Amino acid sequence: MKLYQSPSPNARRVHIFMAEKGIDCERINIDIRSGENISAPYLAKNPGGGVPMLELDDGTCIGESVAICRYLEGIHPEPNLLGSTALSSAQIEMWQRRAEQKFFFEVAGAFRNITGFFKDRETCVKEWGQVCAKKATASLAMFEKQLASHSYLAGDTFSIADITLVAALDFAKQIKVVEIPKLDHIERWYGEVNERPSMSAT
Amino acid sequence: MKLYQSPSPNARRVHIFMAEKGIDCERINIDIRSGENISAPYLAKNPGGGVPMLELDDGTCIGESVAICRYLEGIHPEPNLLGSTALSSAQIEMWQRRAEQKFFFEVAGAFRNITGFFKDRETCVKEWGQVCAKKATASLAMFEKQLASHSYLAGDTFSIADITLVAALDFAKQIKVVEIPKLDHIERWYGEVNERPSMSAT
Repeated sequence: MKLYQSPSPNARRVHIFMAEKGIDCERINIDIRSGENISAPYLAKNPGGGVPMLELDDGTCIGESVAICRYLEGIHPEPNLLGSTALSSAQIEMWQRRAEQKFFFEVAGAFRNITGFFKDRETCVKEWGQVCAKKATASLAMFEKQLASHSYLAGDTFSIADITLVAALDFAKQIKVVEIPKLDHIERWYGEVNERPSMSAT
Repeated sequence: MKLYQSPSPNARRVHIFMAEKGIDCERINIDIRSGENISAPYLAKNPGGGVPMLELDDGTCIGESVAICRYLEGIHPEPNLLGSTALSSAQIEMWQRRAEQKFFFEVAGAFRNITGFFKDRETCVKEWGQVCAKKATASLAMFEKQLASHSYLAGDTFSIADITLVAALDFAKQIKVVEIPKLDHIERWYGEVNERPSMSAT
């Protein structure tokens, strides 16, 4: 099994997930800056063009970070990070999607459209980036409220939803185009989550 | 169990999923046009503000269409629509996410930003809507290629990935802001999928 990777919040999601599971494998670095991920050989393996991608020993390729995590959960169920009952699976899926769609994707939209990081391969609309940045900041109130009454985003146990939010938050702090207000419950959760050894996984 | 719903491609995804499973439940109509989904009582149940939402008999609420589907799959595993092995679950997740992120969300972005449908509650950037429309159209080549060698989007069996793509395609045809070229394999798949009784579920 090989993980094709490049430094990004998506790679970090998979790295944290693997570290939580105690899984490791061969790594192959992909240079997204030069467009290696949109080259014909890479797209033949992963038509979505995303990084990371997991290649199994028989050559089967799994793209999309959360799909990679779902495969890893299947082959290595413990510790459980995607839910073990109908309800916990649904609640984790719900918060994972909120963390992605209401925050992570907005942060990414702000980054790409404001900085023009991928302007060699996509049309950037700065005004839209600013809309994304405001939406990302506004969404934090929802997570703050949830974390006021729950240890972790999807309830009492650490899950992929926490991984997505922490990776996106650290990315937002790094790129400095999204305002991150100080919010007490997010700060409490962030401190606790950052004590996990998996947080420094690369 | 009650499903809060309003006419939308997301509601259709859940309706098709339920019909495939042979599940039905009480329905409560939500008027998104007047903003009922962003009213305080609704947000108390579903802070993401999305519709549909599933309320269980004990009052637990599940928002986000795919999270609802995951709950329904858990309580009613057959016919399987989310995968039954580590690999099939990952491949379905991968294609489901491609159908969502590379097509459905781009169609939605085109619709919202070009038509200003939700301009009473969000900032619309027409130029961004046009970027989304082009990206949605361009993504169809990836699905066309996959469907050239597979019966369904994620392989040999019908799954949630097909549900997402068909709901998004029909929505795109309805709103008329995204160009949908005639593509042979997508057309073959679309015709076959549309023979399923679940497609007319409401």
